[in-house]
Amino acid sequence: MSSPNFSSSDKNRVLIFDTTLRDGEQCPGATMTFEEKLEVADFLDEMGVDIIEAGFPIASDGDFEAVTAIAKRIKNATVCGLSRAGAKDIDRAGEAVKHAKRPRIHTFISTSPVHMKYKLQKEPDAVLQMVIDQVTRARNLVADVEWSAEDATRTDHDFLCRTVEAAIKAGATTINLPDTVGYSTPDEYRAMFEMVRNRVPNADKAIFSVHCHNDLGMAVANTIAGLMGGARQIECTINGIGERAGNAALEEIVMAIKTRNDVFPFETGIETTMLNRASKLVSAATSFPVQYNKAIVGRNAFAHESGIHQDGMLKNNQTYEIMLPESVGVSKTSLVMGKHSGRNAFKDKLKGLGYDLGENQLEDAFVRFKALADRKKHIYDEDIEALVDENIATREDRVKVLNLLVVAGTNGPQSAVLTLDIDGQHHTRQSTGNGPVDATFNAIQAMIPHAAKLELYQVHAVTEGTDAQAEVSVRLAGEDGRLVTGRAADPDTMVASAKAYIVALNKLTAHRGVTGEGARLHAHHGAA
Amino acid sequence: MSSPNFSSSDKNRVLIFDTTLRDGEQCPGATMTFEEKLEVADFLDEMGVDIIEAGFPIASDGDFEAVTAIAKRIKNATVCGLSRAGAKDIDRAGEAVKHAKRPRIHTFISTSPVHMKYKLQKEPDAVLQMVIDQVTRARNLVADVEWSAEDATRTDHDFLCRTVEAAIKAGATTINLPDTVGYSTPDEYRAMFEMVRNRVPNADKAIFSVHCHNDLGMAVANTIAGLMGGARQIECTINGIGERAGNAALEEIVMAIKTRNDVFPFETGIETTMLNRASKLVSAATSFPVQYNKAIVGRNAFAHESGIHQDGMLKNNQTYEIMLPESVGVSKTSLVMGKHSGRNAFKDKLKGLGYDLGENQLEDAFVRFKALADRKKHIYDEDIEALVDENIATREDRVKVLNLLVVAGTNGPQSAVLTLDIDGQHHTRQSTGNGPVDATFNAIQAMIPHAAKLELYQVHAVTEGTDAQAEVSVRLAGEDGRLVTGRAADPDTMVASAKAYIVALNKLTAHRGVTGEGARLHAHHGAA
Repeated sequence: MSSPNFSSSDKNRVLIFDTTLRDGEQCPGATMTFEEKLEVADFLDEMGVDIIEAGFPIASDGDFEAVTAIAKRIKNATVCGLSRAGAKDIDRAGEAVKHAKRPRIHTFISTSPVHMKYKLQKEPDAVLQMVIDQVTRARNLVADVEWSAEDATRTDHDFLCRTVEAAIKAGATTINLPDTVGYSTPDEYRAMFEMVRNRVPNADKAIFSVHCHNDLGMAVANTIAGLMGGARQIECTINGIGERAGNAALEEIVMAIKTRNDVFPFETGIETTMLNRASKLVSAATSFPVQYNKAIVGRNAFAHESGIHQDGMLKNNQTYEIMLPESVGVSKTSLVMGKHSGRNAFKDKLKGLGYDLGENQLEDAFVRFKALADRKKHIYDEDIEALVDENIATREDRVKVLNLLVVAGTNGPQSAVLTLDIDGQHHTRQSTGNGPVDATFNAIQAMIPHAAKLELYQVHAVTEGTDAQAEVSVRLAGEDGRLVTGRAADPDTMVASAKAYIVALNKLTAHRGVTGEGARLHAHHGAA
Repeated sequence: MSSPNFSSSDKNRVLIFDTTLRDGEQCPGATMTFEEKLEVADFLDEMGVDIIEAGFPIASDGDFEAVTAIAKRIKNATVCGLSRAGAKDIDRAGEAVKHAKRPRIHTFISTSPVHMKYKLQKEPDAVLQMVIDQVTRARNLVADVEWSAEDATRTDHDFLCRTVEAAIKAGATTINLPDTVGYSTPDEYRAMFEMVRNRVPNADKAIFSVHCHNDLGMAVANTIAGLMGGARQIECTINGIGERAGNAALEEIVMAIKTRNDVFPFETGIETTMLNRASKLVSAATSFPVQYNKAIVGRNAFAHESGIHQDGMLKNNQTYEIMLPESVGVSKTSLVMGKHSGRNAFKDKLKGLGYDLGENQLEDAFVRFKALADRKKHIYDEDIEALVDENIATREDRVKVLNLLVVAGTNGPQSAVLTLDIDGQHHTRQSTGNGPVDATFNAIQAMIPHAAKLELYQVHAVTEGTDAQAEVSVRLAGEDGRLVTGRAADPDTMVASAKAYIVALNKLTAHRGVTGEGARLHAHHGAA
């Protein structure tokens, strides 16, 4: 069976194909680390995604390793790897997904005139033969093969039907007709599926799939129009990340179907109460902020400020709310936490935020929460999340920040005196730099010489007010090109910066250990 | 003439009604200052918006003043004020817009069963009478009256037709049928307009208007479906900000119509090359970040990273691009600026970014650019924008930051020694605080005692890398409740924080001066 979660008797069961780890991850700046990819994949599987597109195995060794590792660990979902038409591409994808319980190869080629002429530089007949060859080769490796007609919405209808028919005949079990450039409209996209499914004689032997980009703001509407036209698989990403203006957002599609089931009579297997956490997980892994008014998962999506709306909400929440915040995992009650809050309230709060910690982790988080509450008047949900996330992120530190003194201001150079615990030994170093952050990072470099390059440095005020915690993200590129991201929160921006850098450095060395190169932390003694 | 930009012979001319300053500004956290509202209104007018909804005059004195000031200054667009059904509301709106060249009152009432029963607690017949009364009253004040059936998409069709007919008979020149709760689908929304326009006998005497929210991700598709159903006015906001998941985004609708004019045969008066700057202006005024993959104006909207897409783009940009970045004001060429760049290249660069500075401003910016280039390896477009924006923001400073020394780190309390120039005199003060930012702000408070409350503190790394500029936003609430936002950029986060706070404080005192309360800066002498 190609798609065991799907029974042909469930005519309105729609498969969710998540491509956050492939189309999402390939957009500029969204690169995730190996560990982050595994974490996202596990979460998607738990949330009920039917097919996880885990990467593009031929693209890099890193992609290959990630797809392989995900294929090995995923319990329920089909694990899919992308490939172009070439034999090497397909074989590499097959190699990566072969360990999966339910492996799929997704192979594609462009079918539109502009893509065939300029990108492929091939005649249509040659492309048609490549379709047959690529699907046949993939079917020799796995039973579940998806074929995509790249740029389908700008493809000649006759040629599209010929390629779809050939792909199904060659053994494709899913046919994807993507709106690659985000050009289509709901009416057009629906009509295309109806046309192909009416004209292609063996169309009933495959599941049709939609894949929409949001360049004109219509990805969700186009996706649903595709379902109305007979498609039963949706390709989408968490938070709608992806090339250019991104892909259709999983959370919006799923909630549109659920909320308007009267006119969109479909069913998905998604546990919607996990959507809010999925959004936060992907936002953290990619360092892509979610805009405040993002549908479903933005922090304003269920917020009401104007007097008119508040008045209506107090009288009856149906006046301005078409879905319950709880249905997507947003807890409505804003339980105020502070220094008088007890362990049980804290545990309850964490549970409300979707964190289920073990006893030791909980105790550790509670001590840190109390310390924070002493220094900070208002404790917001975000403060608590930042606290717990850092806690999770820094579990196996080889290097810890013990002490930091930074001197900043208008008269550079700024300077930092930093004390680190490196494998149990204390080291101190003073450095200067162009700005206090640069000075701090130079001190780290002086004690732990490393060739890793700083790729990204970001500061977020996690909550409002001067006594808010600063959350800092640091992304490092290792010598081998691997990227890791460290995040840390502290009321002092400089302390958060040092900690985030160290978190990233710990991840980089931990990963080296895994790949057998051994840790290369060289501690240099020095004193301020 | 109610809508002078619109001639009834242009059957496909669609009016753009921007509600960034009303529906956008009323969403949690988006509050703009008086000055920011004027700046946004001026920009919208220049960009070709047909109707600017400037605020909700009865809501507060601040809203009333902003609508009044915008009405007085706007050159081309119709200026509109919102009001509920009550006489006081309508009169207040009329009072605010009366100075406009083209004034409009927009008055609304809920017509859906759930809103009438729970929010209004009135029977339908009573609501119908209120519609007649409110439109009649508004028409006695201005010739251009828009009436909205709030929650139209959940309203009984018969009742909707009765109220629309009554509103037009009472003199409404525009009828808005909003999808208040973001519940509708493209097919439904189009059908509603067709139904109302077919059944209401005097429907041809009014322009119909769409107003969509994005709760299910379909605001843009619904908006265009409304046009297909006969509407010829679009209510929308820059960046799609607004209640909950926001309104339909102006830039997405305009570019969807422009890009797909073959199937959406409409015309707007928008100068699309200004869309990118409009997005940045509103993002800065509200401190709402734009997500990277936001359609049209996100920083990834025209970015291509994956090898496949880059390969295609190099061969022919039509392979993956359906509109030119230049058409929305994004300059494609990334001209690298550095310390060797001359005045002309700098001027050209600024022009490319949409800034047209006078000679003195340009010279000042160039000196600051050179100073920055000395301290920073890579100068990005964002660096230059931050530099120029700060320059514009701090033109008439009474207080300037001269010198700052901050000591931060793990061993609190953190401390700051700050020297300010206050009306030409130098003052220095040392303070401690909970974190370096708090210490710095305490030093300001010590020298300039003030009752303003810090409402928001945010740090953005404007560009990537440790040597990036930090851009800090500080929002202060004055004693009278007025909100001002200060922004500043500097490679040193602490310096940027001090400067941003001072910019906000300058704005607050400048504004007091304007309203006749006089500046209340009390300089207290002190030495570190």
